[in-house]
Amino acid sequence: MIQGHGDDSYHFSKPMRLNFSSNVYGRINLSELWLHLADKLQNTDEKGHNLLSFYPEPEPFSLETEIARQKGVSPSEVLVTNGATEAIYLIAQTFRMMHSAILQPTFSEYADACHMHDHRLTQLFRLPTASEGYQLPPDVCLLWLCNPNNPTGSTVPSDVLEALFRANPRVVFVIDGSYDAFTMQTMLTPKQVCAYPNVLLLQSLTKRYALPGLRLGYVSGNEFLLNELRHRRMPWSVNALAIEAGMFICRHGDFARFDLKQCLNEASMLRQLLIDTKCVDVWETQTHFMLCHLKYGTAASLKEYLANVHGMLIRDASNFEGLDSHYFRVASQGNEANQELVKAIRQWLAE
Amino acid sequence: MIQGHGDDSYHFSKPMRLNFSSNVYGRINLSELWLHLADKLQNTDEKGHNLLSFYPEPEPFSLETEIARQKGVSPSEVLVTNGATEAIYLIAQTFRMMHSAILQPTFSEYADACHMHDHRLTQLFRLPTASEGYQLPPDVCLLWLCNPNNPTGSTVPSDVLEALFRANPRVVFVIDGSYDAFTMQTMLTPKQVCAYPNVLLLQSLTKRYALPGLRLGYVSGNEFLLNELRHRRMPWSVNALAIEAGMFICRHGDFARFDLKQCLNEASMLRQLLIDTKCVDVWETQTHFMLCHLKYGTAASLKEYLANVHGMLIRDASNFEGLDSHYFRVASQGNEANQELVKAIRQWLAE
Repeated sequence: MIQGHGDDSYHFSKPMRLNFSSNVYGRINLSELWLHLADKLQNTDEKGHNLLSFYPEPEPFSLETEIARQKGVSPSEVLVTNGATEAIYLIAQTFRMMHSAILQPTFSEYADACHMHDHRLTQLFRLPTASEGYQLPPDVCLLWLCNPNNPTGSTVPSDVLEALFRANPRVVFVIDGSYDAFTMQTMLTPKQVCAYPNVLLLQSLTKRYALPGLRLGYVSGNEFLLNELRHRRMPWSVNALAIEAGMFICRHGDFARFDLKQCLNEASMLRQLLIDTKCVDVWETQTHFMLCHLKYGTAASLKEYLANVHGMLIRDASNFEGLDSHYFRVASQGNEANQELVKAIRQWLAE
Repeated sequence: MIQGHGDDSYHFSKPMRLNFSSNVYGRINLSELWLHLADKLQNTDEKGHNLLSFYPEPEPFSLETEIARQKGVSPSEVLVTNGATEAIYLIAQTFRMMHSAILQPTFSEYADACHMHDHRLTQLFRLPTASEGYQLPPDVCLLWLCNPNNPTGSTVPSDVLEALFRANPRVVFVIDGSYDAFTMQTMLTPKQVCAYPNVLLLQSLTKRYALPGLRLGYVSGNEFLLNELRHRRMPWSVNALAIEAGMFICRHGDFARFDLKQCLNEASMLRQLLIDTKCVDVWETQTHFMLCHLKYGTAASLKEYLANVHGMLIRDASNFEGLDSHYFRVASQGNEANQELVKAIRQWLAE
């Protein structure tokens, strides 16, 4: 496991006032869900038992069935996991010792999981184009791709992805759609990917519903492909409260709506404010987080300064493949917080 | 993953009144813990965030430090996992393709995990004795042993275990102590096993504190050995509420006391009542659950009858290695419930 993920406020002795370090969108109102879960903990039966007093289903098939119904696929095409992270490690384990290509720079867990399970690894820094017939290197077995991508915020259009799936029928595509609720671009759905024999789509309820403490994700894909994963997962990996939250979300989908347009507008304004400092380059982003490059100084020292002086947490992005010590990542947290962040960065730049 | 574990009430359409199927001791008062966790869910900050709104520590080192302090070992000698199950699969993965011996009959996950990670497997049905110099077969690399053992309730004395550790220095011993709070026999402690270079001790807070829905366990062992596991675990596998519960348990250890002597007396009375039916043989047990052998009829049909007619759940034990369709397992649930169970079994026997 690499050191240096986001949301690492536990490294600092004082509490953080503002957290730009995690890609979890923190402005989703979950009060109904918290109330529901707290009720479940306190509603004990006459023996003092609640839902945590019993084993969860060894394989969370009730939730898989519910998600499948929502997404218009079969329960055999959905596999619920202990966060999308379990899916990443399970896929790497299932295809152990194979040749994986990873579209970089991206979330480091794909490479970590591949290393752990002895994959041969190729780092790709661009996808093959139409004029190249969308052909991946001939001996690649898996392609890992995050869409929208962490940390850049860039997206690959669905029609390009589908062209890739068709042009490389012997490659298994692992598409991490953890952030796909946070873009206006058209993203592939579970129903679409299940039509292909060679695509696994990862989703993170942790991300969409801003409950990373609970650990909940799922993979969708063709039944045959998914069965390879199903045979290798350990029992009881998803805790009972996560399953309960998943069921609640499926049944009350509307409860956690958020204004995506506003969310992206605010991100866009943050991007402009950062560019206006003239000391930061910011990648174009299709989502609420963005990758920044400092023209002067290091991300590590900016991070230390913001945490210790302002109680603000950002993500030092220097440990992403292909990036260096000047890169950091921030997720928009609303106009007011964003403005505070840029003000603090300006102070650091001035010092 | 095998089908047919205990606590599988989800297979039945009506709710179960009494649950003898799981080895979780259901008579521990956790109301303080439920209240604490419910508070944590409802105590949101001004942004509506609670502990589930943030990632847990990628590796739960705060809880590892707290447990280490309690057990008198170093934090590097404790590894907290997503239930003891994650530890089992992580150990099997760490020692993949090696030769494992399993003391049978026992919890099937050891064999399942070994199969998944391509171990060569030997089933042992007894341990080597003093007169055999405690020597295990020469090419065995790992020995898996559950103590007290599931499903039999039998225990191996600590001095025998320590003789085995010393006589087989090149074998890694995986001792599953998930039930060691539920016996009067002297059990090995984390401090004791950390003195050996070749022992991993699994513990289940899930079991001791009767919160299997939450998934919380840990491994203790020599730092070098434990590091092999540490390098292979995935991040964020333990959810934030489980960590919170673990911290609460460490700090308020007394809150969930139970009367072990009474618990074992009740189990002993249940055993006698079952023997008195003259149709059931019951293994001697050192803990609160026991393995039973039907002289007539199958465990599957008894289980169906008890569930459908009486709303009682037992564990069909026919899928344990070396057992057959006549075996079932029950965990004592207090005199009144136990008497109801035996009455219902007598009715089934009479039909």
